[in-house]
Amino acid sequence: MRIAIVLFDRFTALDAVGPYEMLVRLPDAELVFVAEESGPVRSDTGALALTADRTLAEVPDPDILVVPGGPGQLDQMENETLLAWLRAADRTSAWTTSVCTGSLLLASAGLLEGRRATTHWLGLEYLKRFGAEPTGERVVIDGKYVTAAGVSAGIDMGLTLVGRIAGDEHARAVQLLTEYDPRPPYDAGAPHKAPAHLVEEFRTSSRFAVE
Amino acid sequence: MRIAIVLFDRFTALDAVGPYEMLVRLPDAELVFVAEESGPVRSDTGALALTADRTLAEVPDPDILVVPGGPGQLDQMENETLLAWLRAADRTSAWTTSVCTGSLLLASAGLLEGRRATTHWLGLEYLKRFGAEPTGERVVIDGKYVTAAGVSAGIDMGLTLVGRIAGDEHARAVQLLTEYDPRPPYDAGAPHKAPAHLVEEFRTSSRFAVE
Repeated sequence: MRIAIVLFDRFTALDAVGPYEMLVRLPDAELVFVAEESGPVRSDTGALALTADRTLAEVPDPDILVVPGGPGQLDQMENETLLAWLRAADRTSAWTTSVCTGSLLLASAGLLEGRRATTHWLGLEYLKRFGAEPTGERVVIDGKYVTAAGVSAGIDMGLTLVGRIAGDEHARAVQLLTEYDPRPPYDAGAPHKAPAHLVEEFRTSSRFAVE
Repeated sequence: MRIAIVLFDRFTALDAVGPYEMLVRLPDAELVFVAEESGPVRSDTGALALTADRTLAEVPDPDILVVPGGPGQLDQMENETLLAWLRAADRTSAWTTSVCTGSLLLASAGLLEGRRATTHWLGLEYLKRFGAEPTGERVVIDGKYVTAAGVSAGIDMGLTLVGRIAGDEHARAVQLLTEYDPRPPYDAGAPHKAPAHLVEEFRTSSRFAVE
């Protein structure tokens, strides 16, 4: 099972590392981080760099394709090299997946038209422009297309996919080994749960607000 | 607020990236990944490398110190360079923290003696050898020492610390922005919840089993 996780300048690190930590534990997983050029790729904060061990061109046909999001996704929506790679990889993939605003890249490549999908809560309306049907679910599965909500949702997406591919027993073993028994100290992780003024502030200052 | 996250060969990626994604959103955070030598550091799976932008020597006195775990922790328990750095950094830190078996490194440095602490569920008994008092809690705070359970618990630890340092309002904003509203597709993330045979298999094959 060859898994490619796409990196690009100013990606959000947990978007990529959440699914990585789950999917890498699939039986016979061959997981590789890929980018337009190989080498270190900086995250959105500037404080973290993950290495892309292969170029996009070197990994043309992964079985599972994972696209993270992050502020850098806006520029990538016009990167024809990446979009062409996504379209080509999707032709033979068993699963085409995204976390957070990574779904906007899949959508830009034309892969989510008419499909149910999700993204970071701030980007849900934007997703409609590409003919996708946004839902408020945390992980949305539409055929082979699996999209996750913002940032931390990639862990749930990754574990869900482990279960689909390797069975519930294997997924439970992965959950136990990664001690994924979350206990958030607050309950403000979704817009319908968070204080309304916080939701409003983020909506006003969001990069999707003016588009 | 200067934050140093320690990397070493065969660390577990989510142990480091979970707290990173939370703590980097502290006001005025200056977060840096450090290792004995700067450059890419490979995780336990071999499939991921995070860049250490600074050496340990270059960052002697962070305000927050974060030590991840992973299979590589066993070798590091005898790495006097790292242990000496931990002891020195701890002398001036505001918070000394760990995720997963990272607490065994803090313990090896003599920093957890007589303190309540936690680690990956497979390592709880081992932690006792260093005079620490293991607890089954997901995040344990004993004075300025904050230890988290296995792998994914670093997210809860990071968000907890954001709340302590910057206040509940800021922590809720971070939780909302990272959409940290977890929905694990299974409920096997802790030994008391997982199928007993899985727990037993992991205990038998664990690197802590024969020690």
